[in-house]
Amino acid sequence: MTFFDALDLIGTLAFAISGALTALHKKMDPFGVLIIAFVTAVGGGTLRDVLIGRTPVGWMQDLNYLYIITLGFILVVVFRGKIHQFKLSMLLSDTIGLGVFTLIGIQKGLDYGVHPFICVSLGTMTACFGGVIRDVLCVEIPIIFRKEIYATICILGGFVFFLLKKWEFADELVYLITSLVIILVRLLAVKFKWSLPTLDLNTHP
Amino acid sequence: MTFFDALDLIGTLAFAISGALTALHKKMDPFGVLIIAFVTAVGGGTLRDVLIGRTPVGWMQDLNYLYIITLGFILVVVFRGKIHQFKLSMLLSDTIGLGVFTLIGIQKGLDYGVHPFICVSLGTMTACFGGVIRDVLCVEIPIIFRKEIYATICILGGFVFFLLKKWEFADELVYLITSLVIILVRLLAVKFKWSLPTLDLNTHP
Amino acid sequence: MTFFDALDLIGTLAFAISGALTALHKKMDPFGVLIIAFVTAVGGGTLRDVLIGRTPVGWMQDLNYLYIITLGFILVVVFRGKIHQFKLSMLLSDTIGLGVFTLIGIQKGLDYGVHPFICVSLGTMTACFGGVIRDVLCVEIPIIFRKEIYATICILGGFVFFLLKKWEFADELVYLITSLVIILVRLLAVKFKWSLPTLDLNTHP
Repeated sequence: MTFFDALDLIGTLAFAISGALTALHKKMDPFGVLIIAFVTAVGGGTLRDVLIGRTPVGWMQDLNYLYIITLGFILVVVFRGKIHQFKLSMLLSDTIGLGVFTLIGIQKGLDYGVHPFICVSLGTMTACFGGVIRDVLCVEIPIIFRKEIYATICILGGFVFFLLKKWEFADELVYLITSLVIILVRLLAVKFKWSLPTLDLNTHP
Repeated sequence: MTFFDALDLIGTLAFAISGALTALHKKMDPFGVLIIAFVTAVGGGTLRDVLIGRTPVGWMQDLNYLYIITLGFILVVVFRGKIHQFKLSMLLSDTIGLGVFTLIGIQKGLDYGVHPFICVSLGTMTACFGGVIRDVLCVEIPIIFRKEIYATICILGGFVFFLLKKWEFADELVYLITSLVIILVRLLAVKFKWSLPTLDLNTHP
Repeated sequence: MTFFDALDLIGTLAFAISGALTALHKKMDPFGVLIIAFVTAVGGGTLRDVLIGRTPVGWMQDLNYLYIITLGFILVVVFRGKIHQFKLSMLLSDTIGLGVFTLIGIQKGLDYGVHPFICVSLGTMTACFGGVIRDVLCVEIPIIFRKEIYATICILGGFVFFLLKKWEFADELVYLITSLVIILVRLLAVKFKWSLPTLDLNTHP
């Protein structure tokens, strides 16, 4: 397993835990909690795989995703009253997931020969649409459509990726810098509570 | 048509009728009722086909599904005030569907060479996710995430299936016993109102 | 670019604008507005492509969709207070989209060799299910399941298409008459406020 694979699993675990916590707040039963953990963790990548035609989709070909999500589910069930003590490590793992998943999505786009703009869409989808599916199943308007700049950071990361590619940086460096940019901007966004303004129908120019 | 195909169509009819009834309660128009009947009946299998890459998906290749769902839709529209008189036959058909759909999903997984755990997921998905899509389109948190042990029974059935396989039972026997286990446990669950406990955030260990 | 392609882009623009307006009313941020514009415009065709196995899906292979949707998004953000002044041209473009998208969906079904009934489903899906996905993401019961006869018009158009085919009309004529029927019936439906009756559980025969 490479260092990058390890980061992928850390991100998957963080996404699964955050999904499971959301499901708990919706008073779901254990099966519901497990499924919400699952779709939050792999839903974005699954949607990407389906749209580009990479089937059977990723989590069917590598059981590690199933195991790590089950682990996240068990951790949440066991420690559910004490989870706030892990807030900082959760935020860090979640942010690592954001960076790694964006890169994986972009790379899959390159593998399938689509345009850089589509690659950026696939990166954003991989990182953010697990959360969208989670919110739809919990009957909430997806949070990234309302106040999280999560997705905007992935798009920014995608443009950094292709800029560095164009400047002919080595692949390792492109990966490293892109993920660091995503992680750094995300942490700054949380720290300073950055969000996009809502577009109000009455405040037109 | 084999006996198994006949059971498949009985299950499809039962699922279509239950979907149409849900849509009626949401005051939908006839098109909405038809679509909800459709997704409830074939949504789980469609999702499975898309995720494993079996396209065009099943109901596009066998018009019997379209016909039987339309029949279910018409039955509901015509008898909609008297449907409670058929409660027992509905429960039985629905339970047959649960057993048959789980087996079909597992078998498709085997056809595509994925791991037994993934086969069990595909069986559960085939049997239960039509209802999930129905609930999402009706803007309800999916009932199987909250109080139905429906999905848990499918998972149990999946493990029975692979246990019997491992013990080298004949295929016919594996199919028969697995579906009987699912059907029996489901009927007991309805009879004794079994459900999974909700995981409350405040009752941690 | 053919005349038909131009009509496709006009329809895409109209759908994107209507999606963006819905998102504005839900007080989404710019990213949410863009995504809702996107799924409203290409969601139906994307679902169709995934179900028949045409991947990578259409909008990944032709950047014009991405550009025209972004244009629609910008138009809505800039003119959002004055959009009611364009009500008539919006209705006309939207109706052109309905006709063109239905034809594209039917044609894709023919390309993949599925039964005419399935082709009609694919045409209806292409024209109507972008709106269904939009409504699901906005946590509303899809409007075409409740009071819009939108979908019924597409189904009618589909039957006209195959009737003309059977009568051996030239392909150009089949396309022209089908789209004119859809457009005309849609405009009449808006003018005279036609809708399907809701099926009430208490008004059974």
